[in-house]
Amino acid sequence: MASEHPPISAPTISDVAAAAGVGRATAARTLGGYGSVSAVARERVLAAAERLGYRSNILARSMTTGVTNSLGIVVADIGNTFFSGLIRGASDAASARNLDVIVISTYEDLAAERHAVGVLLDKQVDGIVVSSAAVGAPDAEHLAEATRRGTPVVLIDRLVPGLHLDAVVVDNRAEARRVTRTLIEAGHRRIGFLWGPTTDTGIDTLDELLTVNTRSLWSDAERLRGYLDALQDAGIPYAPGLVTTGAKTEESAARAALAMLQSEDPPTALFATEAEALIGALHAVQDLGLSYPGDVSLVGFDDTSWATVMQPPLTMIAQPVDAMGRLAVEQVVSRIGSPEYEPRLHMLPAELMTRSSIGPPSRVPGAPTASAGKA
Amino acid sequence: MASEHPPISAPTISDVAAAAGVGRATAARTLGGYGSVSAVARERVLAAAERLGYRSNILARSMTTGVTNSLGIVVADIGNTFFSGLIRGASDAASARNLDVIVISTYEDLAAERHAVGVLLDKQVDGIVVSSAAVGAPDAEHLAEATRRGTPVVLIDRLVPGLHLDAVVVDNRAEARRVTRTLIEAGHRRIGFLWGPTTDTGIDTLDELLTVNTRSLWSDAERLRGYLDALQDAGIPYAPGLVTTGAKTEESAARAALAMLQSEDPPTALFATEAEALIGALHAVQDLGLSYPGDVSLVGFDDTSWATVMQPPLTMIAQPVDAMGRLAVEQVVSRIGSPEYEPRLHMLPAELMTRSSIGPPSRVPGAPTASAGKA
Repeated sequence: MASEHPPISAPTISDVAAAAGVGRATAARTLGGYGSVSAVARERVLAAAERLGYRSNILARSMTTGVTNSLGIVVADIGNTFFSGLIRGASDAASARNLDVIVISTYEDLAAERHAVGVLLDKQVDGIVVSSAAVGAPDAEHLAEATRRGTPVVLIDRLVPGLHLDAVVVDNRAEARRVTRTLIEAGHRRIGFLWGPTTDTGIDTLDELLTVNTRSLWSDAERLRGYLDALQDAGIPYAPGLVTTGAKTEESAARAALAMLQSEDPPTALFATEAEALIGALHAVQDLGLSYPGDVSLVGFDDTSWATVMQPPLTMIAQPVDAMGRLAVEQVVSRIGSPEYEPRLHMLPAELMTRSSIGPPSRVPGAPTASAGKA
Repeated sequence: MASEHPPISAPTISDVAAAAGVGRATAARTLGGYGSVSAVARERVLAAAERLGYRSNILARSMTTGVTNSLGIVVADIGNTFFSGLIRGASDAASARNLDVIVISTYEDLAAERHAVGVLLDKQVDGIVVSSAAVGAPDAEHLAEATRRGTPVVLIDRLVPGLHLDAVVVDNRAEARRVTRTLIEAGHRRIGFLWGPTTDTGIDTLDELLTVNTRSLWSDAERLRGYLDALQDAGIPYAPGLVTTGAKTEESAARAALAMLQSEDPPTALFATEAEALIGALHAVQDLGLSYPGDVSLVGFDDTSWATVMQPPLTMIAQPVDAMGRLAVEQVVSRIGSPEYEPRLHMLPAELMTRSSIGPPSRVPGAPTASAGKA
């Protein structure tokens, strides 16, 4: 196609004016929808514009109105199912409002996030939705600054402690506490947690764990706190070997789960807080020739259709990703042009999709292992 | 944050000029990087811009240069793992070139695609990558037109027959032929195909099927042709009941697979050409109390990490989604500003990830069913 028809450059207002036999100012007023134009001239300009395939220059209009009809969305990884679900919800809500979405992935790198926000401000987006890599307000000055300068920012999926901005999140602590309580009620007292905070130094005490946890992303930190809450509620002491401290990858989760399950006093249940952690845990369970929930119970974030065809199907926590994306866009749109507002926190509930991966513990904790010895 | 600090409006070139004690034109020349400015004035303007947090107005610069440093990506569904993988690859390639990406989902609706391309042209993106819903050139005039007017378009994942544009796709026909041949070599002669073309009228003959198939999306049509090629290579006649004609949803695929497996002469293998079709097929197999590959062999597009933790792990076709996204961006970038070019077709190979879901057939075709009777 391109080789057959040499490109024609897009027609300008001058082209339309010439074709309509009117002055450039008349054409500009007609096409820009401002000032007064005679009905006859107006009709001739619109007919010429149609004939030439003229497209009004949105960039020029943006400069006049200060509104670009676009939003920026900054997430850790557009290729991750959780984030692509958020983006789908956000995109749908934006499309319904004739807003375009500029999407940028940061891979949890704070410098990349700062750059991304700068790019979006340069593009003069009308608002920004961000799943930030910042773990505290001092790291999030770029977000506070954007808001102060009149580009509203809505946090999605993660709060940033100390940063008071609109936010749409799930109550990760409550959900993690609930699912851990479900495991405890099923009889489990040794529950492995994948994944805990990443650290090079060993963690021996609860205090050390809580200190390291303050340097985690909010959602990760909250899930660990919910797990610890439930243990405390049930009077179960924290066991250092049951909370991973490795890198947040499927391979690292698999290694950690393998080590836990091969230890002298292995967990009877595993709680995986990310899909990669759950897949890693499943690899470890399968490599040891164990089955779930017979040998070890399993539960994880976030629900997905493949969890329903696993045998047995997996019990999973489902976050309302679509609603989160939509709500974040509605919130940011409501802030456009508002000079001052009180930030609003939307804390949405998740749902525990109860299937068949939680059962009673395979053995009495502390007793010789029956199952892990199979390997 | 927003409530504590009332927003300050962004500083303008006039603000910078006033702060630097120079004229507006001098400030504009310095900040716009054009014209000549004395070294002293230049230094004062840059210092004032830095102090005030001035951001150069990209929109204004775009009007001058005609380059917006942005690309549009139009896909069927950003929430689908395949497309989010393409977008990740494309976004990474774009970021490396300081290009922003505007992403729009069309849900396979041609009117939505035309609107999306119009929006992107209005935004004056420098190029467009599109996974088109068009099944022939007459439906894709919006893409031909964009290219003729100087905004290069690169097709991704799907060709549009008759439309000569740059494209990055997998050889879907060859891959489908290869995987079907693998099933035939394992001894299968009755191979169910999920999913075939969607149609309300029954299909009885190969000719009818091939006619309806020309109205399918290119990738869908090619996969069916590859399946038929392999049957023909092996001298196996086409069996109408083994190619689905229902809606392209997980539920519809599950119903179709259930009906096939419960028929008098059921398939001994199922080839699912999409993840939803495969999950539907797995539901049907499980609902009937069958196992794979013992009772029925399974293989599908597109590979994913959960396929490795299914028991047994699934044999899958892996498309190079990341490379496809990157290559499409590289191709479109290479066309920016080129008035004429010969469209280039990049046909990438996929990989068959051989795991454990293909085995010998459970019975001799035509013989009484042993397995499907279990339900």
